[in-house]
Amino acid sequence: MPESAAKPTLLDRAWRNLRLAWRGIAGTAYDETTASLRPDLPDDDLERVRSQIRACLGAHGNEVSARAQAAALARAYLALDAGGRERFLILLAGDFDIDRGGVDAAIRDYRRAEGEAARRRAEQALRGALEAARVRLLTRFNGLPEGVKFLVDMRAELIEWSRDKPPLAALEQDLKALLVSWFDIGFLEMRRITWDSPASLLEKLVSYEAVHAITSWRDLKNRLDPDRRFFAFFHPAMPDEPLIFVEVALVNGLADNIQALLDERAPVQDPEGADTAIFYSISSAQKGLAGISFGDFLIKRVVDRLADEFKGLKTFATLSPIPGLRKWLEEAGAEPELLTPPEREALAVALGGGEELPPLATLLDAPDWHRDGALAQAMKDPLMRLSARYIIREKRADGRARDPVTHFHLTNGARVERINWLADTSPKGLRQSAGLMVNYLYRLKDIDANNQAYRERGEVAVSSAMRALAQG
Amino acid sequence: MPESAAKPTLLDRAWRNLRLAWRGIAGTAYDETTASLRPDLPDDDLERVRSQIRACLGAHGNEVSARAQAAALARAYLALDAGGRERFLILLAGDFDIDRGGVDAAIRDYRRAEGEAARRRAEQALRGALEAARVRLLTRFNGLPEGVKFLVDMRAELIEWSRDKPPLAALEQDLKALLVSWFDIGFLEMRRITWDSPASLLEKLVSYEAVHAITSWRDLKNRLDPDRRFFAFFHPAMPDEPLIFVEVALVNGLADNIQALLDERAPVQDPEGADTAIFYSISSAQKGLAGISFGDFLIKRVVDRLADEFKGLKTFATLSPIPGLRKWLEEAGAEPELLTPPEREALAVALGGGEELPPLATLLDAPDWHRDGALAQAMKDPLMRLSARYIIREKRADGRARDPVTHFHLTNGARVERINWLADTSPKGLRQSAGLMVNYLYRLKDIDANNQAYRERGEVAVSSAMRALAQG
Amino acid sequence: MPESAAKPTLLDRAWRNLRLAWRGIAGTAYDETTASLRPDLPDDDLERVRSQIRACLGAHGNEVSARAQAAALARAYLALDAGGRERFLILLAGDFDIDRGGVDAAIRDYRRAEGEAARRRAEQALRGALEAARVRLLTRFNGLPEGVKFLVDMRAELIEWSRDKPPLAALEQDLKALLVSWFDIGFLEMRRITWDSPASLLEKLVSYEAVHAITSWRDLKNRLDPDRRFFAFFHPAMPDEPLIFVEVALVNGLADNIQALLDERAPVQDPEGADTAIFYSISSAQKGLAGISFGDFLIKRVVDRLADEFKGLKTFATLSPIPGLRKWLEEAGAEPELLTPPEREALAVALGGGEELPPLATLLDAPDWHRDGALAQAMKDPLMRLSARYIIREKRADGRARDPVTHFHLTNGARVERINWLADTSPKGLRQSAGLMVNYLYRLKDIDANNQAYRERGEVAVSSAMRALAQG
Amino acid sequence: MPESAAKPTLLDRAWRNLRLAWRGIAGTAYDETTASLRPDLPDDDLERVRSQIRACLGAHGNEVSARAQAAALARAYLALDAGGRERFLILLAGDFDIDRGGVDAAIRDYRRAEGEAARRRAEQALRGALEAARVRLLTRFNGLPEGVKFLVDMRAELIEWSRDKPPLAALEQDLKALLVSWFDIGFLEMRRITWDSPASLLEKLVSYEAVHAITSWRDLKNRLDPDRRFFAFFHPAMPDEPLIFVEVALVNGLADNIQALLDERAPVQDPEGADTAIFYSISSAQKGLAGISFGDFLIKRVVDRLADEFKGLKTFATLSPIPGLRKWLEEAGAEPELLTPPEREALAVALGGGEELPPLATLLDAPDWHRDGALAQAMKDPLMRLSARYIIREKRADGRARDPVTHFHLTNGARVERINWLADTSPKGLRQSAGLMVNYLYRLKDIDANNQAYRERGEVAVSSAMRALAQG
Repeated sequence: MPESAAKPTLLDRAWRNLRLAWRGIAGTAYDETTASLRPDLPDDDLERVRSQIRACLGAHGNEVSARAQAAALARAYLALDAGGRERFLILLAGDFDIDRGGVDAAIRDYRRAEGEAARRRAEQALRGALEAARVRLLTRFNGLPEGVKFLVDMRAELIEWSRDKPPLAALEQDLKALLVSWFDIGFLEMRRITWDSPASLLEKLVSYEAVHAITSWRDLKNRLDPDRRFFAFFHPAMPDEPLIFVEVALVNGLADNIQALLDERAPVQDPEGADTAIFYSISSAQKGLAGISFGDFLIKRVVDRLADEFKGLKTFATLSPIPGLRKWLEEAGAEPELLTPPEREALAVALGGGEELPPLATLLDAPDWHRDGALAQAMKDPLMRLSARYIIREKRADGRARDPVTHFHLTNGARVERINWLADTSPKGLRQSAGLMVNYLYRLKDIDANNQAYRERGEVAVSSAMRALAQG
Repeated sequence: MPESAAKPTLLDRAWRNLRLAWRGIAGTAYDETTASLRPDLPDDDLERVRSQIRACLGAHGNEVSARAQAAALARAYLALDAGGRERFLILLAGDFDIDRGGVDAAIRDYRRAEGEAARRRAEQALRGALEAARVRLLTRFNGLPEGVKFLVDMRAELIEWSRDKPPLAALEQDLKALLVSWFDIGFLEMRRITWDSPASLLEKLVSYEAVHAITSWRDLKNRLDPDRRFFAFFHPAMPDEPLIFVEVALVNGLADNIQALLDERAPVQDPEGADTAIFYSISSAQKGLAGISFGDFLIKRVVDRLADEFKGLKTFATLSPIPGLRKWLEEAGAEPELLTPPEREALAVALGGGEELPPLATLLDAPDWHRDGALAQAMKDPLMRLSARYIIREKRADGRARDPVTHFHLTNGARVERINWLADTSPKGLRQSAGLMVNYLYRLKDIDANNQAYRERGEVAVSSAMRALAQG
Repeated sequence: MPESAAKPTLLDRAWRNLRLAWRGIAGTAYDETTASLRPDLPDDDLERVRSQIRACLGAHGNEVSARAQAAALARAYLALDAGGRERFLILLAGDFDIDRGGVDAAIRDYRRAEGEAARRRAEQALRGALEAARVRLLTRFNGLPEGVKFLVDMRAELIEWSRDKPPLAALEQDLKALLVSWFDIGFLEMRRITWDSPASLLEKLVSYEAVHAITSWRDLKNRLDPDRRFFAFFHPAMPDEPLIFVEVALVNGLADNIQALLDERAPVQDPEGADTAIFYSISSAQKGLAGISFGDFLIKRVVDRLADEFKGLKTFATLSPIPGLRKWLEEAGAEPELLTPPEREALAVALGGGEELPPLATLLDAPDWHRDGALAQAMKDPLMRLSARYIIREKRADGRARDPVTHFHLTNGARVERINWLADTSPKGLRQSAGLMVNYLYRLKDIDANNQAYRERGEVAVSSAMRALAQG
Repeated sequence: MPESAAKPTLLDRAWRNLRLAWRGIAGTAYDETTASLRPDLPDDDLERVRSQIRACLGAHGNEVSARAQAAALARAYLALDAGGRERFLILLAGDFDIDRGGVDAAIRDYRRAEGEAARRRAEQALRGALEAARVRLLTRFNGLPEGVKFLVDMRAELIEWSRDKPPLAALEQDLKALLVSWFDIGFLEMRRITWDSPASLLEKLVSYEAVHAITSWRDLKNRLDPDRRFFAFFHPAMPDEPLIFVEVALVNGLADNIQALLDERAPVQDPEGADTAIFYSISSAQKGLAGISFGDFLIKRVVDRLADEFKGLKTFATLSPIPGLRKWLEEAGAEPELLTPPEREALAVALGGGEELPPLATLLDAPDWHRDGALAQAMKDPLMRLSARYIIREKRADGRARDPVTHFHLTNGARVERINWLADTSPKGLRQSAGLMVNYLYRLKDIDANNQAYRERGEVAVSSAMRALAQG
């Protein structure tokens, strides 16, 4: 949570509120224990943290005090440096884990239980034994002002650190389970973002946008024009923090170029006259909510809302990158049979007749290859064909589509509709997607069937033109 | 949930919103399955419900559809009569329970697991096996508009029905666990209620008030006067439904009479001049949240807030009933040694010298005994003494104070401060508490110690006057 | 303003806010001058008020101080008794009137002015001379918290007192001119009132309702049911004070009976199925805004809004009393030719054949005449005929319809559609309107023409049935 | 109103709302008349406008229709080009002016009037005759959505055009009188602006800032830091349009340099520890409200609010430019006696001993003179002395301080406290104020006396240091 560390004022403010809230009840003792900890949490300080966690977990029947103690611990955590925090988390993961002796005993009781009522009790006891003590502490952090954001950010750190520190993984899973319950879709609120939204919120969106970077306030304002829509999900306990957001353009016909969509000088269209809604960017905003999925819901709720507001909309589709394309081409690029003979010939001509035809992957490395009209023209056919094949046919070992964006939209029940040539010539677009972009089509009446076919049989819904393209 | 049944318009509205929300996605098929069910849910209809629940639980990876199916089931549930609902719940409890075979298998895997990583996976698998499939359906009901209220009301029914139908108890426990997570204190919002609050909300408070009934809008307005405070907890997913609320009077000195406090003709005091805050009523509003405790938090947050707003406040205390007093006196009433000789004598004189002295419990049955000055005077000493003893010394088998109100405040860390004679002469006050009321004192600096002493050693914090009174 | 006097706490609160707002600037001197005035404002106190008004009006270029002085004067005014206030107002009216010498001088300058620019200046100067100094003080009262409400209530007093004290009339006219400018229709906000509105606002509506008294909270809630609509105008400077409000029932067909409309036990209809909106009550809430008309706007904006919300609505009409009917009948009642011979005969039979037929006006004096079936039947024909004649033909000397309600709706461009027999059998309905009520029809396309015909030629728009009825 | 012309979408939206609002009542006839006008309003179109204005003004007793007609006229006005609008306004000014014959007649009646009541009537009639018919039309534009903003912007155009077209001046004065009444201080709402304010509002503030230009969103955010305050006045009928705003820095000691205050890299101070509030920028935002003063109120309300929030604040002062200084120096610059002999000598040395000493005004023309340490040092004494003299002693013919900023603060009752050397070295600061800035001190207890002394006797409140400086 280096971001939090960089904003001590926010945290201090939160803490001031907290002290006000628990004044007198929290007692200063809690703060005294933890306020003087050294940032790297050396052993004797760690010991003091351990005692305080024990005290907090032991405070039965007096939840108010327990929460005040948890708050003091959170305060201490925020004041630590990265190393100190990791030691804090490892302590939490190790010392307040599931008690395996307790689990074994509960299993014994469960097996011995006779009669319905006894079995029920034993089940419940076993379930309880399987819950680590630290979960109670995590829950109690929710009493903090902005406590949910605290936990989400703590999980962001845990995800990073647990990669090479397995003991932290179980703690991370506990935290995820807690957040899955609290961030149930039913609690989320969808809000439209406009140029009338708070500047502080817009600033966050700029920093969270993960697909097509927002380069300036002018760029952002352009994405909030009357012929655009911008929606985000929020949770009531984090009202100023977007969880995920989607950007939509209201246009005529399937959009085939992202630079054209984002052109700040393009005139504003009358949204009432649009027949197509293009979802051109969807970004998750909270690293600490990784693995908790909202995108499917957001897209479908936006589809509903737009269909309700604009009666002229007939088509709902995306304009999406193919982030894994270049990588796949590189891995597949050595195979000469990727290109058909006419394609090879055309390419050789465009390259000025050199003897050896370099692999496509190599050609794509050249800066500005797409500005060389003849070359680009010669590369178009094979690239379009291969990318169609990549999207439709390439699978991972577990049967999922190899491209993560493709997998996301297929799981949502969308159909692969069209590939667009030179649709994103930004450095990132060229680097990842070879400048290509895909329209995925959301047709509400087909969504359930598409999802089921993909889920159960790995079948990819695809337009006939795409299918023909993939077949060459 | 007969209340819900009595308000079809609300539910219909919720359902209309829902259809709008999921239009096109939900598909009409879900509604068709469930819309035509007969109210008493005969066997073939029950079979259709079973199929739909299976379909809903089987919809992996397409949460949007799964929630639409859950919504259709909820709609069906609301349209059933009481018998039909119970059959629905029994189906849910029985057919979608924990799979014990699965649990046994998971236990076997757990015992066999070797190595840390394998153990972790086995733990997680066992935890999963212990969660009944029905829990996923309950969670999905949260997608409904007012879905949380739906679940809370469903639990209210379950609590009632599971008393004599044990199979429902486990389902009720599952639902409770879900609600415990969602209604974590950290999510609650405390709001002050005033005469500017919505009439619809005030009307609910009238119907939820459980201690001193609100008899009219004028009575309610009186409780919202400038020298009164009224606070409630709300959950963001049920913004119009109070969870619990507390009523406070800002006065001078410990209040000793509830009728005086509620007197509509009494002049309004300047709250700035008050030295004492009297908590005279605290009511839980949602039967479906029984066993999930908010009262402790509410009292302490109100104490903090009032202390912050009114610098002159020195004392925070309750004016509370003794709901178990009369019952205890009846059970103890046969023992003649309850009264001291002088008390017996005084009582005999007051009764006009009849030969046999009736038990106190019998005397208290007489209507208007408290209006007979001489009699009341003679009863005062023994009743005050006995009630002090009841409050301070009488315990349940598990060590808790016998009176539930006493237990609540002692757990919160309060102290038994004073008993007040003829403090509540309403029919209910006489019937339950023999007209007596208690002041429990909240002294912030003592709360933790009091709570710990009571929790660990059953010690009751008590004023010296009370102690002396109990000793006679 | 006895109401204000009865609520010192509100005013004290306003004043406390004010002191806070102007702390340090206002200076305590202003308060000292005025705070110690005696309630009846004897001569020496009056003199101090005169000085302070002079000081306030003389504070050029320092508007902040001037407003603080005005606030101190307002504070003083509110603390006076009725007699003192009247003396205050007479002082304001007399000492700070237009300076007639100044007017005469300005007229002389105006007549002498040569050249366009000089004339303009002279016009402006003359206009200035015609504005009384007291207007500046009235304007400055607007600086008070709730200053607009203060002025509105002051005008309510002025209207009452100026009836028999002509010197106050000019002051009242000045205040009216100020309020006309501030309460321009363009500033008003229309809000829908529902059962979710603040109880404090609903309580005011109960007390302001002037047509069909609201007898209980239950009666009020009934008027806010889903098949009813309740709208009010508000001014941004008096956000908690309705200016005027209208109550509408969404029904099928023209409503013909007010007791049926207000029946609390009647089932709620589905408003989506309604074809008719009945405006059954419209009340002005602020006496101090008498003569400043909002009703026309409110009705037409509600018509627009309802037409927009409920596509099924075809008819917009009122169900209105005939408040001047009984009075007119009494004045006209001696003329025997009011009744036709068959009517006289039928009436005689119903009365049991007494020799002398009493006047209709006398018969209407009998309590419960309408419960005597035969008598009521005999009275129906003549009463319906005469009331139609009264409404359509009876005019005041200035050409306006004699009945004020009729005049209001005709000015709005409505048409007299139907008279309803025994439509309001409440004591007030019988006393004023002989139990009859009228439907006035608002047909948008005819409104301009109807208004013009009535305004220019006194023509009354009327249905053919009504015309036939009036002709007997 | 070129800005409005550049945003047709806003106006079209307003108009769409309007049509909805008056649907059916307005009738299409009004729009037909005006919708087809040519942008330059040739004679026959002008004639049609004349007719429609007459119709609108003649619609007595049917205000709803009259407002719809006014709306159609406003719509027509907005669609005209600049030339067409001017012709529209000249028509309004000329044809719907005061009827001088009517005024003469009213004057005759006034002179003849006998008796109090007759005089009152005659006064009122004369006042009426002095009000031009066009005022009724202006008022009716208030019925438009955003009608007040429409009128404010119309006046901005009128102010510009009436400079060389006197006939428009009277119309402009009428409009001003209307706006003076509507924009009474009592109606304004003060709001704090923060980084959480809508981006659309912040964008307006950037464009309206008139003292120290806001150069970027980063610059703006810096001015909204925790140790800054930013307040604006709003009118309820223009809720998204600031009228005037002020920027404040919470610092320790009198700030003496604007670049230091605006430095984005400067660390944020704890505002709780500040002892001084520096008002460093105050800007009027609406050209159409020129001559209607809010600045005095805004400063004093901000002083009150800050004093209430931050108990440590002891000093309230400005850091202000001296916009007329350079101009005055140029006019006075030829006089050699402006400099004292030692000053002349020091300057000669710094200039390298040229024979002829150029005037100060000429030296100030040199780019970057302030970066030449020796020269700047030599210029400091005379410039400080002369600017003190300019501020304190230089008066206009009417006795007001010559510098407009000085006059503003003296009228408000502030004191000239200090002049700061090289306090604003921005191009604008050097060009207008020779790099100097002034602290004006607001001491609440002296404000009334200072204002009175300045207003009545032209006395300037000044610190002893400043007085000494001016005397050399």
